[in-house]
Amino acid sequence: MTAGGFVRVGVIGAGAMGADHIRTITTSVPAARVTVVHDPYAPGDFGGVRRVGTAQELIQAPDVDAVVIASPDRTHADLALACVAAGRPVLCEKPLAVTAHDARRVVEAELSLGRRLVQVGFMRRYDPGFTDLRRTIELGKIGEVRLIHAVHRNASNVTSTDDASLITGSMVHELDAVPWLAGSELTAVRVESPVRQGFRDPQLATLWTRGGVMAGVEVFVNAGYGYDVRCEAVGTRGTVSLAASSPVSSRIAGIEGRVVRSDFVAHFADAYRAELGHWARAAATGTATGPSAWDGYVAQVAAEAGVASLASGRTEPIDPGERPALYA
Amino acid sequence: MTAGGFVRVGVIGAGAMGADHIRTITTSVPAARVTVVHDPYAPGDFGGVRRVGTAQELIQAPDVDAVVIASPDRTHADLALACVAAGRPVLCEKPLAVTAHDARRVVEAELSLGRRLVQVGFMRRYDPGFTDLRRTIELGKIGEVRLIHAVHRNASNVTSTDDASLITGSMVHELDAVPWLAGSELTAVRVESPVRQGFRDPQLATLWTRGGVMAGVEVFVNAGYGYDVRCEAVGTRGTVSLAASSPVSSRIAGIEGRVVRSDFVAHFADAYRAELGHWARAAATGTATGPSAWDGYVAQVAAEAGVASLASGRTEPIDPGERPALYA
Amino acid sequence: MTAGGFVRVGVIGAGAMGADHIRTITTSVPAARVTVVHDPYAPGDFGGVRRVGTAQELIQAPDVDAVVIASPDRTHADLALACVAAGRPVLCEKPLAVTAHDARRVVEAELSLGRRLVQVGFMRRYDPGFTDLRRTIELGKIGEVRLIHAVHRNASNVTSTDDASLITGSMVHELDAVPWLAGSELTAVRVESPVRQGFRDPQLATLWTRGGVMAGVEVFVNAGYGYDVRCEAVGTRGTVSLAASSPVSSRIAGIEGRVVRSDFVAHFADAYRAELGHWARAAATGTATGPSAWDGYVAQVAAEAGVASLASGRTEPIDPGERPALYA
Amino acid sequence: MTAGGFVRVGVIGAGAMGADHIRTITTSVPAARVTVVHDPYAPGDFGGVRRVGTAQELIQAPDVDAVVIASPDRTHADLALACVAAGRPVLCEKPLAVTAHDARRVVEAELSLGRRLVQVGFMRRYDPGFTDLRRTIELGKIGEVRLIHAVHRNASNVTSTDDASLITGSMVHELDAVPWLAGSELTAVRVESPVRQGFRDPQLATLWTRGGVMAGVEVFVNAGYGYDVRCEAVGTRGTVSLAASSPVSSRIAGIEGRVVRSDFVAHFADAYRAELGHWARAAATGTATGPSAWDGYVAQVAAEAGVASLASGRTEPIDPGERPALYA
Repeated sequence: MTAGGFVRVGVIGAGAMGADHIRTITTSVPAARVTVVHDPYAPGDFGGVRRVGTAQELIQAPDVDAVVIASPDRTHADLALACVAAGRPVLCEKPLAVTAHDARRVVEAELSLGRRLVQVGFMRRYDPGFTDLRRTIELGKIGEVRLIHAVHRNASNVTSTDDASLITGSMVHELDAVPWLAGSELTAVRVESPVRQGFRDPQLATLWTRGGVMAGVEVFVNAGYGYDVRCEAVGTRGTVSLAASSPVSSRIAGIEGRVVRSDFVAHFADAYRAELGHWARAAATGTATGPSAWDGYVAQVAAEAGVASLASGRTEPIDPGERPALYA
Repeated sequence: MTAGGFVRVGVIGAGAMGADHIRTITTSVPAARVTVVHDPYAPGDFGGVRRVGTAQELIQAPDVDAVVIASPDRTHADLALACVAAGRPVLCEKPLAVTAHDARRVVEAELSLGRRLVQVGFMRRYDPGFTDLRRTIELGKIGEVRLIHAVHRNASNVTSTDDASLITGSMVHELDAVPWLAGSELTAVRVESPVRQGFRDPQLATLWTRGGVMAGVEVFVNAGYGYDVRCEAVGTRGTVSLAASSPVSSRIAGIEGRVVRSDFVAHFADAYRAELGHWARAAATGTATGPSAWDGYVAQVAAEAGVASLASGRTEPIDPGERPALYA
Repeated sequence: MTAGGFVRVGVIGAGAMGADHIRTITTSVPAARVTVVHDPYAPGDFGGVRRVGTAQELIQAPDVDAVVIASPDRTHADLALACVAAGRPVLCEKPLAVTAHDARRVVEAELSLGRRLVQVGFMRRYDPGFTDLRRTIELGKIGEVRLIHAVHRNASNVTSTDDASLITGSMVHELDAVPWLAGSELTAVRVESPVRQGFRDPQLATLWTRGGVMAGVEVFVNAGYGYDVRCEAVGTRGTVSLAASSPVSSRIAGIEGRVVRSDFVAHFADAYRAELGHWARAAATGTATGPSAWDGYVAQVAAEAGVASLASGRTEPIDPGERPALYA
Repeated sequence: MTAGGFVRVGVIGAGAMGADHIRTITTSVPAARVTVVHDPYAPGDFGGVRRVGTAQELIQAPDVDAVVIASPDRTHADLALACVAAGRPVLCEKPLAVTAHDARRVVEAELSLGRRLVQVGFMRRYDPGFTDLRRTIELGKIGEVRLIHAVHRNASNVTSTDDASLITGSMVHELDAVPWLAGSELTAVRVESPVRQGFRDPQLATLWTRGGVMAGVEVFVNAGYGYDVRCEAVGTRGTVSLAASSPVSSRIAGIEGRVVRSDFVAHFADAYRAELGHWARAAATGTATGPSAWDGYVAQVAAEAGVASLASGRTEPIDPGERPALYA
């Protein structure tokens, strides 16, 4: 951290997500300032920050204290490893890696180092609705959780375009959020779809946790009407659900309606701001405390089990191995 | 009442409202059966019931035990008087009369007779929402009522077409419902409108009750988007409101919406059924127990004060005189 | 039907459900009148109707045109068969029988007769919310249906008290409603529970229809907080859901809330009224047109497959055989 | 503005509101940094910022570029004048002054200077709900606005404790928001209460704008159940309303409910963040662009008219004089 009291951030990848992170940091995160950007393709000057020609150059730059990785998914693991090697706290957009094997390499690197540097971009853990769900559960207000119902829909989707990427790119959010809400690790997954031919969208996943919670998860990336994320936890004494979030309702032409956004970035704007603020404050102390490389690895293990299940038609076990003490 | 166990009903006026009452009685009110109809204009055979050429003939008919008046407003008072004279229980659509003076004549006729025969068609008193509001208030759940906010909107309206008829034809429902909810009589009214020229629609009324409740009432008979009736009672410990009533919601094309009906008959279908059932059971015993001729008279007094207020720009007193013991 | 214009109804079983049917017919169904009751245990005189000592006596009674069966489940099939044998239209509470084999016997009896006499008490088909869901789907407003999510919860339940009766007594409603909404027959079912020991409540069912719809169904008969029935159909262009149904909301002590009823009879009061009215009008013509004996049989086949699935841990096929032309 | 790229802010008054502003700037407004605080009473070190003994010292401090005034209401006008005299951009909490006369002095000071330095803390103009309301109106979606209904309730209130302070301290928000939403200046106000003796709470205000909109405003500072702000604009083609804002709903013990907060600071957290961010960006350029001293003056004129009306029982005119070109 500089004497100025903020973390100097280098951003790798300034496409839609990266550009939004730059904007959020600049307008809403006093604890951080974007100083360097690397993106060989994105136009724009991002408020006059310095641009460098390679990711490695950015990670090593003397005016970069911490790194945000928002480049294409297949680059995540190697870039995260480079950040760990350089001792840079890093916020890596999900997925941490495109294979569980590669995600595990990041975990191993942190284990070798003996401390956490990586936070994975599971921003729902910072969303006011999801945090309220979790708090309500933890306070015991709904008794013991038995079931979780989750829905995750896009109007349309340009990145989750085949059976596997729907799971690894979209459902991975639920694969992280469900055990986080349930307070218990996933042990098995089954993924099915009503669609038998072509792109199998929507998909219905069933999840099991060690603590005895089952979850039913719908992911539908071409739902047509808008972006919609819903979740209900069902306990022995009651339930708690995400509520509609639009700030106004209108009554026009025979309909009392609320807008459903089409855009997940706008939907989760509060969550991204809180995520980046939280991350920057930890990065200022040279560490990371949010969703960990282990969380990213486990979600990837679960996603691969989901992909296998969709193909096999069977329930598949989720076995990431023992959780290391670093991630306790 | 016949040996058959139901009241034989004659219906005067088979336009929209009368035809709906016939349909409701026939499909949903075992305690009554429509036996005779009088309407010189309405086509249709109403399930084969007998038709007669004059209202007087209907009221006197040997196979008519009780009468529903759904003819044009200006005929109500004389027909109600004829029913009282003939000893026939009668459900008279609101308004009971087009002048307070004429409504008072009906009250006087009942007072001479010494018992109630007239129920006025203030169907909101039978609506599940309004009855729930009242019960919540009576149970003390919101503490002492201080304010009532009411909204009454039509998409468009073919009968309330001038400043006065908006009050006497539409707002009259609130002029009855507010004191009924507040449990206290109206003492004054003020009616204003943001519209200064032409048809003064919408109108905002302020009402005062003897018990110290104020009410703000919006009536807007050309609100465009649909039929909408809302009400909130505000007490010293909380509030209670009518809730949206459509049975489903949809998410289509970026809107999460519920249908707002355009039709008050459909909106109040449950209320009309309860109203007619209640009325028929009382009629079977030769009396009336719902909203009374006195209530109809008082609402008319309040409506006339409202019309005067809209013209004068002043708050006008509502003074119907002492409530007779018959209506205690 | 008598000259009086109504069907004379005999009611077998006057416990909670039967007594409510008597009350509904008496207050809201002009097309029917309860004339005879048989129940060896229920006290009360049910408005002075005649009581007989045996069900058979009731079915044969000269003043009974049609029969309502609301006696214990295990008696349903034989009573329905007796009604068919006697040529009496009958509304049989669900389930039509406690085994698919017995339900099939009722189907065979109708097939021998060559016409329908039996309506099964799947009242949801008459609920304003469910009928709106179905109409919205049929109008194509949500595109092609892909998924249905259903929830069915009781605060507590005295009849669904073991793994199998939860399915045959409670989930059977969804086993009928899902194919009715989807417009396509069930082909397979899987039932699971997060609870491994003791009474396996809640249960999560997955259903498949011939037309390619999948459904996720939660049934939780000890959900604690109230009676709650929800359903969402998800199509390629949008979704449609049952909406909250309480007529008022309150704001008290830091909560804006709507009452969740504890009672399914009150929840479905509108549905029961419509069901009985519909049934009575068909019975007046000597037939039945609502949910059929075939529907009751198929739901029972599905329920038995569900019970088998919960035990086997496998997806079980639902194969009721070819639908006879009588039930096309 | 310093070379560091942020405005150095001095905060006068670090009670509840001031402390929250410090927290919001520190956690969420990169464009500003709190460098100096003056409060003779507030404990705490506010993250190590420098404290000075007098407000004047703070305003003159070389490391203060802009000032936030959150001290007691009676000090606002003189402090704002001192800021203008010193050429410091200032965010002054509402009210700008406790008399219209004093607020006018601030306006005159700016007029003499020839540019704006003052933003008044009408944070609703930055609330996502209120901004959505305004945008919906401006887009013409509800046609021409005819009416606005507003509700402003506190569970209890320690500052609005008499008839006048309810208007000047609480209702003043609506006196600013209504003309801002309507796009037209207030011309008259009437304030009444159902309570005749003692503290006249709640109060019902009626407002008129030059453009022909009427508004009904309820302010109830001891509403018991929570903090609640609602608003509906009614147009010739539809209406638009603030929607419930809690992120989750629960179903527990027979109630489906959403939390109503008791705290306006939490309720308007998004608005305060946007307000401070907007203000800081303008302050960095040496000016102010949000709600102006003129807006603060006009709201105060309206509040004084409201206080007069509550006493006189009459509608009182609101006449702030001609809007100077500086505030066009």
